[in-house]
Order: sequence, then C-alpha cells, then structure tokens
Amino acid sequence: MTTTPARAEAFSDGVFAIAVTLLVLDLHVPDVRSGLLDALGSQWPHYAAYVVSFVTIGIIWVNHHGFFDRLRRVDRPLLFLNLAFLLLVSVLPFPTSILSAYLQTPQGAVAAAVYSANMAVMGLAFGLMVTYATRRPGLLTQSAAEAIGGRFLTRFTLGGPVYVLAAAIAFWDPRVSLAIAAALAVYYALLPMPGQARHGE
Amino acid sequence: MTTTPARAEAFSDGVFAIAVTLLVLDLHVPDVRSGLLDALGSQWPHYAAYVVSFVTIGIIWVNHHGFFDRLRRVDRPLLFLNLAFLLLVSVLPFPTSILSAYLQTPQGAVAAAVYSANMAVMGLAFGLMVTYATRRPGLLTQSAAEAIGGRFLTRFTLGGPVYVLAAAIAFWDPRVSLAIAAALAVYYALLPMPGQARHGE
Amino acid sequence: MTTTPARAEAFSDGVFAIAVTLLVLDLHVPDVRSGLLDALGSQWPHYAAYVVSFVTIGIIWVNHHGFFDRLRRVDRPLLFLNLAFLLLVSVLPFPTSILSAYLQTPQGAVAAAVYSANMAVMGLAFGLMVTYATRRPGLLTQSAAEAIGGRFLTRFTLGGPVYVLAAAIAFWDPRVSLAIAAALAVYYALLPMPGQARHGE
Amino acid sequence: MTTTPARAEAFSDGVFAIAVTLLVLDLHVPDVRSGLLDALGSQWPHYAAYVVSFVTIGIIWVNHHGFFDRLRRVDRPLLFLNLAFLLLVSVLPFPTSILSAYLQTPQGAVAAAVYSANMAVMGLAFGLMVTYATRRPGLLTQSAAEAIGGRFLTRFTLGGPVYVLAAAIAFWDPRVSLAIAAALAVYYALLPMPGQARHGE
Repeated sequence: MTTTPARAEAFSDGVFAIAVTLLVLDLHVPDVRSGLLDALGSQWPHYAAYVVSFVTIGIIWVNHHGFFDRLRRVDRPLLFLNLAFLLLVSVLPFPTSILSAYLQTPQGAVAAAVYSANMAVMGLAFGLMVTYATRRPGLLTQSAAEAIGGRFLTRFTLGGPVYVLAAAIAFWDPRVSLAIAAALAVYYALLPMPGQARHGE
Repeated sequence: MTTTPARAEAFSDGVFAIAVTLLVLDLHVPDVRSGLLDALGSQWPHYAAYVVSFVTIGIIWVNHHGFFDRLRRVDRPLLFLNLAFLLLVSVLPFPTSILSAYLQTPQGAVAAAVYSANMAVMGLAFGLMVTYATRRPGLLTQSAAEAIGGRFLTRFTLGGPVYVLAAAIAFWDPRVSLAIAAALAVYYALLPMPGQARHGE
Repeated sequence: MTTTPARAEAFSDGVFAIAVTLLVLDLHVPDVRSGLLDALGSQWPHYAAYVVSFVTIGIIWVNHHGFFDRLRRVDRPLLFLNLAFLLLVSVLPFPTSILSAYLQTPQGAVAAAVYSANMAVMGLAFGLMVTYATRRPGLLTQSAAEAIGGRFLTRFTLGGPVYVLAAAIAFWDPRVSLAIAAALAVYYALLPMPGQARHGE
Repeated sequence: MTTTPARAEAFSDGVFAIAVTLLVLDLHVPDVRSGLLDALGSQWPHYAAYVVSFVTIGIIWVNHHGFFDRLRRVDRPLLFLNLAFLLLVSVLPFPTSILSAYLQTPQGAVAAAVYSANMAVMGLAFGLMVTYATRRPGLLTQSAAEAIGGRFLTRFTLGGPVYVLAAAIAFWDPRVSLAIAAALAVYYALLPMPGQARHGE
C-alpha cells in the first residue's frame, strides 16, 4: 500500500504546531507583590529552554518539510517511522520543562543530560525514516534518493554523537550542554535537504 | 447532501494531532532536591501509558487515513459518525491519566478496566463508521466497498471482544491488561485497509 | 480584496479541533484511596458538559463546513466575522468548566445561564456571518445565496431565542437548561445548509 | 532551494489556531460559595486581555494570510523568518497571562509594558519577513512586490513606535496602554495587503 504524502504532512504539521505552541505552558506567571520585572528576569532558564526547544522543533519542521517535499509516495512502514519520530517531537515539552526547572540546581546535570538524550533519539528516529526512504525505490524522487543517500546522511548523522557528547558534558556544566544543543540547531538549519522536490519534477 | 472528504480529513487530523500531543501534559516534572533520575524513573507507568496511548492513536490515525483515502464522497450521517468516533479519540488523554495515576495502586484494576473500555468503545465507533460506509452506495470506491465489507470488517471486529477481555483481566493484573492493549495496537498496525484509494481510480 | 476560502477553512478547522480537544482538560483524575469507580461516577456533570459541548462544537463545525463549501470567495469583512465567531467557539471550554464545576451547587443556575448565553451569542455570530454572505453578491454560489437567504436563516435564527429561554430556565432548574442546550444541538444537526456547493458547480 | 508556500501556510495556521485557543486556559473558574456572577465579573481584566489578544492574533493571521497569498515561492531564509515570527505569536499567551494577573495591581505598569513590548517585537518580526520578501526577486507576485515595498511597509512600520509608546504609557496608566494596543489592532485590521494574489495571476 502506498499513498500520497498530503495527509501525513497535515498530521505532522499539526503535531509540530501543537508541540511548539504547548511549550508556552511552561512559562509561569510569577506570584509577587513587587519587583515583577526582577521576578520575570530570574526565570531566564525557562526562556532559554523555551527558545532552544522552539527553534529546534522549528528547524526540524523545516527539514521534515524538505524531506516530505521530495517524497512521491509514502508507504505504511514510512507512516509508522514518521509516527515514532513524531512521538519524540511531541514529548519534547516534557524534557524542556525538566531542564528549565532544574538547570540552576544541583540536579541540572541530570536534567540537561535527559534533554540532550531526547534530542539524540529524536535525531536518530529522523535518520531512520530518511534512510528507509532512500532504500525503498519509488518513494523519493530519483535525484533526491541519490543525493540524500550519500553525503547528506553522513552529515546528518554527525549530529547524533554530538548530542550524546552534550548529554555527557551536562555533568560538567549543564549550561554548556544547552549551548551545544543550540549550536546543533544552527548546524541543522544550515543543512538543507538535497535533490529535487516532487513539485519540480 | 454529499461533499468531498478533504475538510473532514483536515478536522480529523487536527483532533488526532492535538489529542496525541496533549498526552504530554500528563508527564509531570518531579519536585525533588536530589535523585532526579530516580524520581523520573519511578514515573514509568506514566511513560508506559503515554507510549501505548500515543502509538494507539497513531495507528488509529493511519487506519482512519486509509479509510478516508478510499472514500469518494462523505455524507452528513458519516460526518456525525466520524464526530462520535473523534469524541472517543479526544477523550483518551483522560483514561490515560487515570491509568498512569492508579496503575501501581490497589485501584489499578478499575483504572485499567476504564482504559480498555474506552478503547473498546472507540473501536466500536470506528467499526460503525466503516460499516455505514460499506452499506451506502457511492461513498467508498467500488473495490474498497467490496473488500472492506467482507473479511476486513470481521478481522477488525475481533479487536472489540479482546479489549473487553483486557478490561476484565485488569481485575486480575492491570499490567497484563495494558500489555494486551499494546498487543492490540500492533494487531491493528498489521491490518491495512484493503481496496483501491480514490487517487488510484 | 477577495480570496479563496481554503486557508480560512484551515484556520477555522484548527480552532474547532483545538477547542473541542481542550475540553478534555476539564476532566480531572480524582484523588482517592479507594472507590475509584464511585469517584469517577460522581463526576457525571463534567462528562455531561463535556459531551454536550463536544457535540455542539462538532455540529457547528459540520454547519460551518457546509457554509464554507458554498462560498466561492471570501472577502476581508467575512474573515473578520468568521474571527468573531471563532472567538466564541474557542472560549466555550471556559463556560463548560464553569457549568461542570457549579451544576450541582446552589450557583448552578448562574453557571447554566452563562453557558446558554455563550451559546446564544455564538449562534448570533454565525447567523451574522451567514447573513452577510447572502447579502454580498459573488461570495456564495448562486443557488446557495437564494436558498440560505430564505427559509434557512429563519429556521436557524429560531435557535437564538431558545438559548435565551434556556438561560432563563437555568434559574428554575439548571439540568433542564442543559437538556435544552443538548436538544438544540440535535436541532442544528438536522438542519443542513441548502443549495449547491462550489465543488458541484 | 525554493518551494511552494502550501505547507508553511499549514504549519503557520496550526500555530495561530493553537496560540489563539490556548488563551482560554488563562480564564479560570472562580472558587466561590455564593456570588458566582460577581466573581466572574471581577475577572474583567482577564476577559479584556483575552479579547485583545485573540483579536490581535486573528488580525495578524488575516495579514499573514494576505501576505502568503501573494507569495509564489518560499525559500529557506523566509521559512526561518516565518519561524521567528511564529515564536512571538505562540509566546503571546504568556504576556497575556501576566497582563491579566497584574493589570489591577501596583505592578500593572510592568505587566502592560511587557505586553506591549512583545507586540512591538512581533510586529518587527513580521515587518522583517515582509521586507525580505520584497527584496528577493521571484518570491512575491510582480504587482505585490511593487505595491508592498512602497507605501504599505511605511504604514505597517508606523505600528512599531506606537507599541513602544504604549509600553512607555503603561507606567502612567496600564489601562490606557491596553486601549492603545486594542486601537492598533483595529489599525492593522484596516490595512489590507496590496497587490495581486498568486491565485489571481
């Protein structure tokens, strides 16, 4: 069974849009009598985690978008691989909350490690989905199947060990770990999906 | 009155995407001074329930997708049957919360029974919608109407009694009940919708 | 400025899907040591309000769907009327929460009145939007503009005073008020939008 | 890399729809024994902030809609500018909560300033995205690139300093500041995007 990617895109867009917007529920209005601005300022780990998670999900969305644009057909295994990937996207508000709650405490190392580990597994799931599509003839456009299967997957996979490294570094300094996660987001932003989109055929 | 399925698909996709993403609100950041990793680990019933519910909704989405792909037209009764089905999808975060809160308490049996009962009724609603579509000429594509009406509905219906059984088994061991629900999700993942999609006509 | 209805439909579908799914956040897991089933059962006003609100939003969605299907073009005023209508749809989880929290208290009358008043204003906003479209040449399909402008609007408008009546009756018995709201949902379910859809032209 | 705007529209619509609907989570059911109507009435700052934020997001959506309608293609930088803009849309429920919690306290000035500042930055991000599109040949339709690049951007930019002014005025009277934000929403509602949509080409 194969089908057009349209509805899988719509469902994925929904999950991305909701996961990214639910992040705001982690920003809490402080309860103070005076010094509201200071109270808001002291919540900076929440804002930092919010921005890193938002930007990361956003960049993943752009790459997911680029990937699906190059799909001519989707089959049932690809839909399930996409689901597994979306599970990790939609759970992201949870490690983000953990991170922002514990970043400035002695437990910050564990929190940052959990956060980076989630990112690593999410990247892995995306990589699996892309790899499957390059192996299965007829799913990707001809030029994309060739272009993605080569250098792109190598470059993409590089992010994985760096996230694992970020998880390890968290035990030394969780803020450095968060900075690495932010840098990886920029790295993926600069890594466009190669090959021709199906609209371009 | 009949109309194209496009907007019913969009609305359904929205409900699926939100229900599946709201599940994350049931994962709570533990409030501890030390031992964050242990505290996170002790929440395993929440993670188990999260994964089972996410995967179940995801698989139902794939099947809903397959079903709507085979629809050429939708009529008003079908829209209302779809609504009734979506009500049960979107309420699922509630029994999931009940399950994860009570799985390891003496009330775990009741919680798991409520969870499986919700699944059973959701399957029933989906079955009703599919049955209606096979009976009403012109809604499904020709080949799908024949193929779905026969063996598929029989196989699909098998899930119902098993969910009821899972609800009963919950009073003996709620974890076995949850495992059966997970196994049923896999069963439905392996049960693709037969017949030709409308794009294939 | 006129444009195709596609993106207004997508945005509306999103608001409908989210409003309907957020209702589940009003169902709270009871915190008990024993008697979970009884504790769940005693929450029946929450379930009743959930079902009435879900079904009402669902039926409104079906009618909104029918209405937009008959639109060939949307203009800027229509988009803003649609926004005003969506504001009342998306606020509905709030009166629903009020209703389910207070239905069985001495304040139940006020709660049910607020709930019905919200429904009345929502119906009014929908009626305004439909009326505007019938008056503005070129927005609706020819046959729909004629058919909706006549008997349909009269029948549709009938719901308004009944919701006001339901708000008043709440001070006598709030449960009767909720039952009237449920009956009105059924009434609107049986009131299909007349005329030809744009796909049928 | 350029692609069609369709999926960026779908993702944006999702974020808009969710941000606008999450605002309802800031409306809390009061916990009273008697005088429910008074308790509800005393929450007017919450309702005012809800309506202003809802209407503002709604109007921004209409303008975003108008802008994307005039795009023939989107490229990767535009997608990222759109993401930055959506970040500010989806965070809006947070300053809205701050505003409604503090409007009637001595900290109301800070709250209203934060709220207006968020609006100012959101307008800036939208302006940046539109400016980028007018500069990059081939993204906008011919007539839109010319029409938007001229008088429209000047008029649009006017809102920025007024939001900054509103933030400053908040320290004098936060309610006046909120009124200015409401007036700016009306201003933007009356400022349609000029030029031809891609459907009209």
